[in-house]
Amino acid sequence: MTPAADAARLTRELDTLAAISDEAPAVTRVVFTGADLRARAYLKSLCADAGLVVREDAVGNTFARWVGDRPDLAPIGTGSHIDAIPNAGRYDGTVGVLGGLEAIRALAGAGFRPGRSIELIVFTSEEPTRFGIGCLGSRLLAGKLDESAGTRLKDGDGVTLDEARLAAGFPGSLASVKLPHGAYAAFVELHIEQGPLLEQHGIDLGIVTAIAAPAGLKISIEGEGGHAGAMLMPDRHDAFLAGAEIALAVEAAAKSTGAVDTVGTVGVCRVFPGAVNSVPSRTALEVDVRDIDGARRDRVLAAIESACDEVARRRGVRIERTVVNADPPATCAPEIVDTLTHSCELRGWPSERMISRAYHDSLFMSRVAPTAMLFIPCRGGVSHRPDEYASPEAIAKGATILADTLAQLSRRV
Amino acid sequence: MTPAADAARLTRELDTLAAISDEAPAVTRVVFTGADLRARAYLKSLCADAGLVVREDAVGNTFARWVGDRPDLAPIGTGSHIDAIPNAGRYDGTVGVLGGLEAIRALAGAGFRPGRSIELIVFTSEEPTRFGIGCLGSRLLAGKLDESAGTRLKDGDGVTLDEARLAAGFPGSLASVKLPHGAYAAFVELHIEQGPLLEQHGIDLGIVTAIAAPAGLKISIEGEGGHAGAMLMPDRHDAFLAGAEIALAVEAAAKSTGAVDTVGTVGVCRVFPGAVNSVPSRTALEVDVRDIDGARRDRVLAAIESACDEVARRRGVRIERTVVNADPPATCAPEIVDTLTHSCELRGWPSERMISRAYHDSLFMSRVAPTAMLFIPCRGGVSHRPDEYASPEAIAKGATILADTLAQLSRRV
Repeated sequence: MTPAADAARLTRELDTLAAISDEAPAVTRVVFTGADLRARAYLKSLCADAGLVVREDAVGNTFARWVGDRPDLAPIGTGSHIDAIPNAGRYDGTVGVLGGLEAIRALAGAGFRPGRSIELIVFTSEEPTRFGIGCLGSRLLAGKLDESAGTRLKDGDGVTLDEARLAAGFPGSLASVKLPHGAYAAFVELHIEQGPLLEQHGIDLGIVTAIAAPAGLKISIEGEGGHAGAMLMPDRHDAFLAGAEIALAVEAAAKSTGAVDTVGTVGVCRVFPGAVNSVPSRTALEVDVRDIDGARRDRVLAAIESACDEVARRRGVRIERTVVNADPPATCAPEIVDTLTHSCELRGWPSERMISRAYHDSLFMSRVAPTAMLFIPCRGGVSHRPDEYASPEAIAKGATILADTLAQLSRRV
Repeated sequence: MTPAADAARLTRELDTLAAISDEAPAVTRVVFTGADLRARAYLKSLCADAGLVVREDAVGNTFARWVGDRPDLAPIGTGSHIDAIPNAGRYDGTVGVLGGLEAIRALAGAGFRPGRSIELIVFTSEEPTRFGIGCLGSRLLAGKLDESAGTRLKDGDGVTLDEARLAAGFPGSLASVKLPHGAYAAFVELHIEQGPLLEQHGIDLGIVTAIAAPAGLKISIEGEGGHAGAMLMPDRHDAFLAGAEIALAVEAAAKSTGAVDTVGTVGVCRVFPGAVNSVPSRTALEVDVRDIDGARRDRVLAAIESACDEVARRRGVRIERTVVNADPPATCAPEIVDTLTHSCELRGWPSERMISRAYHDSLFMSRVAPTAMLFIPCRGGVSHRPDEYASPEAIAKGATILADTLAQLSRRV
């Protein structure tokens, strides 16, 4: 049996999915918006065409199962996400979803019969765009977000997660999403690298051994507003200037570790009231800090907290901080890492072991099942941008190695 | 003849106008939105009830004339604006519009017959919220914004000024808005101080001798976006961090003059794409700088430009600057300042001469006609905020002095 992913079909489906977007030609597909729901419908139709059995849970995670000869045993999972941040590209997440489906179709086309069932999972809201927290679906699957915390989540317009998922057609209790222990025998996620290393080394397959620990902070600054012409400089408590100083402190804290793996970003800054002739009275920042070393990451968070205290004192503003998440790093399962490596060797395709600086649903699936990831290169390491690009050849190679690996894992009983 | 403004009626009308807002209890009434159009309709009905002859120009400036016994002579103007920035208060601008109308009604009620006509002007978009430039209506009246520049103005959604004014029911050429020289014999604007001095001194009437020179800059920063997890710190060209440094440079430049009258503010900061896990690729700032000394104001602008150049070089980002406006300060007409002073003395009400740090439509009307302003105190000097407050007594005093002054100017032929 030699399954081979169909690069042309995969490209066509990636293009079709990319066109389901709230803008063009960039991709914007935020969870539970019309674009997200239309993309889900498209995917479910492809899964049905492939003969998979589809179910959805209360947060909209979608499970498409190829039932194996041993339905009594825990299945093998693969998958990723289809939501996209505003003005994004077409490969982040989608390569793992459509590539996972293509792997299943390639196996079926080659006459393979699975032992353990093989299941494609499309996780809800890997991107934190709408509710401020990443990996919402997989976090709930892993039981790392309890129902009460989930119920408190709101988007920028004040719409709660419960309201949004009900409107999108996903009723039921959030608590029901959590997977029982042992629900999957293994999980493998195919993804673009979102970094430059594979391209620089001329290698098409990266085998991930660890995933960096992400943390998210929301910082809310309350100063004093007033008329930009009449409020004198010494009397000001400008919330935006406090935010500007904190953003620069985030950069300084991330750089201060001296480690290439520490990154800190302020990706969101909202200024209120947001009029040119009004001194900002409130500012909201959203901060992202990551490191493969959890303790080092936490020292950066502590430095940011100190900076907030210092700025609040000096500028006479109130600063509230909420740690949205501070997750530990994940180590990938050695037996799956070995299986992936072996699959590449059998095909004669060079591979390279690496860490993932970006986080993924695999970070949470690793709490549920032995988990690993397979990376393919993306041009210039660029991601979360409209010019994100992965070649059809690299995507097909990734889907083929994924097929080989799923086949082996499925037979391992 | 002893006209007296009716404080109760004026308060009732200010409350009614405040309720015409896109939110409650704060006032948000941005030019050509539904709230603005409903407020215009309310005002025109009040003017019609008072027997005034109403006309509108191509940008929506509204003129309500009490025709005097000498319609052959240039009229006396008074007025202000009714548009309000997001989350504002109820007195900025509106006190001059409803107070001007009340002054006319008080004069009529006292049996006064005007010599020169007296005209209430409601200026379009004194606030720069929507089109990024303040005093849009009065600027066009003064011929200080030519038709081609006006036609290029766009709001944040890409709607042009021409599209917005046509949709609001104001067709015709922007060039037609410009007033001929000598169109008014005098102009007087009643306004809240938007500063703390009158309250601190326990004086209810401020007579403005000069208006500070405002300048507006739009700064657009283009860096390089990417994934917040995968893009390493040394590789970044973060547009928001560049913006943060420039905002702090604006503050430093304004403070560096050592003059209490220099103010610099960044009231708007938009970060693109605005996702917590995305390195900002673009940032837009809107900057406001003012000073009663135009040359000193221009040195602050130059310091901001230098900071932009330095930040662009050091961070490897592209920074474009557009000077939206850089207007000279205005000196009020001594003969009107004297008439206002004399009116206060006749009533036995203490007054104080002062400068206006905020700018007003009077800044542009001073290019068309001899102009002065009358200030009343507002609590704590607070403006552009929902808790902006001026007492009914102070407002009525202001409207009464305005009535006395308009009467004298109207008889001066």
